[in-house]
Amino acid sequence: MIVVMRSNCSQDEISRVVKRIEEAGLKGHISQGIEHTVIGVLGQTFSELRDALELLSGVEQVIPVSKPYKLASREFHPQNTIVKVNDIVIGGDEIVIMAGPCAVESEEQLLVSAREVKAAGANILRGGAFKPSTSPYSFRGLGKEGLKLLARAREETGMPVITEVMTPNDVELVASYADILQIGARNMQNFILLDEVGKTRKPVMLKRGLSSTIQEWLLAAEYILAQGNEQLILCERGIRTFETYTRNTMDVSAIPIIKKVSHLPIIGDPSHATGKWYLVAPLALAAVAAGADGLMIEVHPNPDQALKDGAQSLTFDNFQRFMTQLAPIAEAANRKLVASNLKVKS
Amino acid sequence: MIVVMRSNCSQDEISRVVKRIEEAGLKGHISQGIEHTVIGVLGQTFSELRDALELLSGVEQVIPVSKPYKLASREFHPQNTIVKVNDIVIGGDEIVIMAGPCAVESEEQLLVSAREVKAAGANILRGGAFKPSTSPYSFRGLGKEGLKLLARAREETGMPVITEVMTPNDVELVASYADILQIGARNMQNFILLDEVGKTRKPVMLKRGLSSTIQEWLLAAEYILAQGNEQLILCERGIRTFETYTRNTMDVSAIPIIKKVSHLPIIGDPSHATGKWYLVAPLALAAVAAGADGLMIEVHPNPDQALKDGAQSLTFDNFQRFMTQLAPIAEAANRKLVASNLKVKS
Amino acid sequence: MIVVMRSNCSQDEISRVVKRIEEAGLKGHISQGIEHTVIGVLGQTFSELRDALELLSGVEQVIPVSKPYKLASREFHPQNTIVKVNDIVIGGDEIVIMAGPCAVESEEQLLVSAREVKAAGANILRGGAFKPSTSPYSFRGLGKEGLKLLARAREETGMPVITEVMTPNDVELVASYADILQIGARNMQNFILLDEVGKTRKPVMLKRGLSSTIQEWLLAAEYILAQGNEQLILCERGIRTFETYTRNTMDVSAIPIIKKVSHLPIIGDPSHATGKWYLVAPLALAAVAAGADGLMIEVHPNPDQALKDGAQSLTFDNFQRFMTQLAPIAEAANRKLVASNLKVKS
Amino acid sequence: MIVVMRSNCSQDEISRVVKRIEEAGLKGHISQGIEHTVIGVLGQTFSELRDALELLSGVEQVIPVSKPYKLASREFHPQNTIVKVNDIVIGGDEIVIMAGPCAVESEEQLLVSAREVKAAGANILRGGAFKPSTSPYSFRGLGKEGLKLLARAREETGMPVITEVMTPNDVELVASYADILQIGARNMQNFILLDEVGKTRKPVMLKRGLSSTIQEWLLAAEYILAQGNEQLILCERGIRTFETYTRNTMDVSAIPIIKKVSHLPIIGDPSHATGKWYLVAPLALAAVAAGADGLMIEVHPNPDQALKDGAQSLTFDNFQRFMTQLAPIAEAANRKLVASNLKVKS
Repeated sequence: MIVVMRSNCSQDEISRVVKRIEEAGLKGHISQGIEHTVIGVLGQTFSELRDALELLSGVEQVIPVSKPYKLASREFHPQNTIVKVNDIVIGGDEIVIMAGPCAVESEEQLLVSAREVKAAGANILRGGAFKPSTSPYSFRGLGKEGLKLLARAREETGMPVITEVMTPNDVELVASYADILQIGARNMQNFILLDEVGKTRKPVMLKRGLSSTIQEWLLAAEYILAQGNEQLILCERGIRTFETYTRNTMDVSAIPIIKKVSHLPIIGDPSHATGKWYLVAPLALAAVAAGADGLMIEVHPNPDQALKDGAQSLTFDNFQRFMTQLAPIAEAANRKLVASNLKVKS
Repeated sequence: MIVVMRSNCSQDEISRVVKRIEEAGLKGHISQGIEHTVIGVLGQTFSELRDALELLSGVEQVIPVSKPYKLASREFHPQNTIVKVNDIVIGGDEIVIMAGPCAVESEEQLLVSAREVKAAGANILRGGAFKPSTSPYSFRGLGKEGLKLLARAREETGMPVITEVMTPNDVELVASYADILQIGARNMQNFILLDEVGKTRKPVMLKRGLSSTIQEWLLAAEYILAQGNEQLILCERGIRTFETYTRNTMDVSAIPIIKKVSHLPIIGDPSHATGKWYLVAPLALAAVAAGADGLMIEVHPNPDQALKDGAQSLTFDNFQRFMTQLAPIAEAANRKLVASNLKVKS
Repeated sequence: MIVVMRSNCSQDEISRVVKRIEEAGLKGHISQGIEHTVIGVLGQTFSELRDALELLSGVEQVIPVSKPYKLASREFHPQNTIVKVNDIVIGGDEIVIMAGPCAVESEEQLLVSAREVKAAGANILRGGAFKPSTSPYSFRGLGKEGLKLLARAREETGMPVITEVMTPNDVELVASYADILQIGARNMQNFILLDEVGKTRKPVMLKRGLSSTIQEWLLAAEYILAQGNEQLILCERGIRTFETYTRNTMDVSAIPIIKKVSHLPIIGDPSHATGKWYLVAPLALAAVAAGADGLMIEVHPNPDQALKDGAQSLTFDNFQRFMTQLAPIAEAANRKLVASNLKVKS
Repeated sequence: MIVVMRSNCSQDEISRVVKRIEEAGLKGHISQGIEHTVIGVLGQTFSELRDALELLSGVEQVIPVSKPYKLASREFHPQNTIVKVNDIVIGGDEIVIMAGPCAVESEEQLLVSAREVKAAGANILRGGAFKPSTSPYSFRGLGKEGLKLLARAREETGMPVITEVMTPNDVELVASYADILQIGARNMQNFILLDEVGKTRKPVMLKRGLSSTIQEWLLAAEYILAQGNEQLILCERGIRTFETYTRNTMDVSAIPIIKKVSHLPIIGDPSHATGKWYLVAPLALAAVAAGADGLMIEVHPNPDQALKDGAQSLTFDNFQRFMTQLAPIAEAANRKLVASNLKVKS
């Protein structure tokens, strides 16, 4: 932490800043510039001290130097984290495809979707049993019944399932059915929920909040890691901007940034980012070209009959066509699709 | 809901749209424009239908016409909602002042704050027992111990207390101590928490999310109202923009907009909106001039020793000075401070 | 400027940073922290050096310490700048009201508007002769003819006039008619235009760009000041955010921030900020309560017949009513309206 | 245009709306919904009418239905626009690479850059002679001298050159040297400049403004097209959001959107979008995977000595390595690099 003093500050003001730093058990190191005196704070700082120093007379600004997260940083953990779900490796050389309907609606809808996305090359089945909804009058998911249908689809297809958990009380229930626990964008800073999924030993996928900086996202990841759960995946799903053509703006640059500053795998979700099915394929290809470790794609047997987010869902045909486009892009990016392996195995 | 067809759409495409509308149990009304055919949807529409229609071939866009919230709208409830907490009326002619420390830190810190803010004219004591924090390594509040201290401060000063509840499991506990339950900005779309506080009959104050539109905020309010709790207050606390000088940008225009489209009272929170103590007074005055029903202000005995958000807290002296500035602005806005009444009473 | 080195950097990397600083004719001052080595740059830095240092191996980040603007800063010029236009003082104790139609449309429209806004207490007549328009098919102003009409209105009413200049070539022409040259939000970073109005000795009002930080705005002001024109006024007119209810979000906090970091007067423009006439009065009152030196308000004889921005224009009646609300707010903020003085004089 | 009436509006209010529509020479078509009466406006509408109707009593909102741009839309011009610069085709099957230094600094710097980027596969040389700068104290370009150096580099390498024109007065001068005129992001709504470059018959590349919607961008394009210049290229270079890690957020989704709603070619500029050289390659690959027709990349012989934007510039080595990564991605996206052709020719 660095304290920049005002250009016209007094010796007294400088002394008081140093004294306050020492009260916090740290040391202040004065450095006299031409315009400004600058005081470096030596030792383990904390955000409350920043506030405290900013309030002292003569202080112009206080600048944090260390990153506020540790466990999520690449300095702390130089190798890539690899998350394993059965035979599937997330964060390695392969591109992992999570696909399925936005919401679990019925046994038939889910099973036919599972079969079709698997046939087209998907590796993990997605489907919401508990659905967040901006309106209290909209469909909020089948709940436990939805979880059971996901388990049945896994049994039939062999695909692991990922599904959202919305509240601490449901963590145990959802963890007993799901292979990966998803934390939705609106819950990225539901800190008690983060604690709870951190206490499980299930893989977790943490979506970026709609208006979260990358640093805040990694601090949310830190909550989960700090509870001892290292099976963590990040997911970029668009941020809120002034543009209204898309539902959100997919921040593709977050992908190489996460790869640089963190060791965690990162997945792109172009369905939620764009809100329009015809933008899903180009943004998915972009995410993989930029270095994403996988994709989450919404697919529905009849998007125009979907109970949730039909406008952003691919039909089976569109998904299959997309997978055909994806393979060469993945290869050009020196990655391969998991599917190609699994086919070899079977 | 209005469906705008592409300029070159076919008769067949129009028929299919009308058919899909009828499948949903509604009626379609075709209107032939010069460039576009437009189909009005008659009957109670829902957001899934919008998605469905947007996917049909020949459709250019689907435009919702009705507001998605009902109970929160002024059309539904033309008179202002009045929330009563003991003798204090929120949403009437008087400006209500909620003040106190960001976090409850100790008995002494809370009691001295309570006495001082009351003496300066505050009506309701604020103080966080459960504190959301972007970092897992920061102070997260005293929990139940903090609630007990709030109760003690209420006993001594007679001021009702407002405090945040962060998770559904804590609603019963917090409601047994607090006079007003606060839902924080990060929890504005924690839908299960909204349901829970909606089931209580305690007054609730719902803060606007950092990146929430006014419509989404009113939909979150709708969750609480839909559970039968009509004792609801809104609170504008700044939205996220590209500007970095302030922590957030206080959207002062949200105040008159809420007054126009809704019947709910609205409070301004300039402490969280700006993040800097010297901006609190001007923004608080602005909020009242724009029509706010009250203010929430952070005050701390020693901001430079605060465990939380010291940089945005007023000292007792600064709070007192602010209250002196506020009185004439309130009067000029044809409002009065609650304090002036209570003094008459005692 | 402060260079923060990576935690694991080598002595060699540190030496190369110091060498690069010395090549720029400056001195580096090494300070060894616990996690990071930090190198202070002593001497007059410049933004290209920041880029250069950020590229060196071992560097984590480079943090500028000095503000990039000088002439616009309050450190450089501690007293408030006072801009005088005839007898009217902008930036003193009085609140100045600029009012009139968005665009000059006809002699009658302008003259009747001028008379009415003057009668209600306005001090300066606004009216666009050159109008920026997002569409090439919309009305773009009467041009020189509009300037002549403004001059005629000034002659009749005695009010000085403010009007926009859009391009360097027109500066001489507009300056020969106008009392204050307005630079619109879209031209805030039209640097050649800034140079040109900086070379005149006419008062200039510089609107904040839709997506400009306060620092960029002050750097744009610096362009004008650097050319020797100190008769400069700033105008907050809303920034672009995700909220769609209003056209832009008026950043009321910019008003006290400008007062703190700069010496320049600041005006609020709630008409452009909100885009809706019924939000103009509350936001105007808020701006004055927050410390604005004046307001710019659009008024039109028949808003529903206006060629430009009718939806945000007040009728004469609404403007008059607003002025009645404004007077007590101004007084409560320890300011007074210019009008009250002038009335005494006449 | 569709006028939605309030749910409780009177017959009189409806009649007045219809009357106002007829005064504008158009026809109103009433459609009675269950909650709302809706009035369709038949005929060629205009934005002033929208404002006018919104002001009428009983009106809830006015919704534009037609797109405000025509010439830039794909409906009007279904085939892709192809821009030809000598032998280079922009908007066809090939990916065009524009590369070179941010600013022209010296003959040597430019010539060595031109040779190196050509050798690595670039097709068009970029280099700024007139440079916009947020600070009046920064380097603003060599001006006419820079244009001459660009011409010399073209002569030597055979590469066409693209360079920015900042003000209407310079259009003729810049057009006499450059092969493509660039309009920078800050000038996207410098309408008089758009008119001027529209009057030339030189290819123009129009960058998206930092806070411009896609619709506003296409309206700016419309200005140029409306003057008869159809040789127009769009360039996405990042928009302003709350994220601070990158300078701007590259809106990759703008690429497929432009392809859908317009016929104009679109280029991605990852250098300005990210502001960090190590993010340039991943975002460039993403842009091509998403369908971009080309890229603009900053390359500098010694980024750490650059007079402008060194932090975002690639070294020659990095550029060469990037081009090697790009080729397979382009092929996977069914495109090829221009370079491969030209090599065959020579």
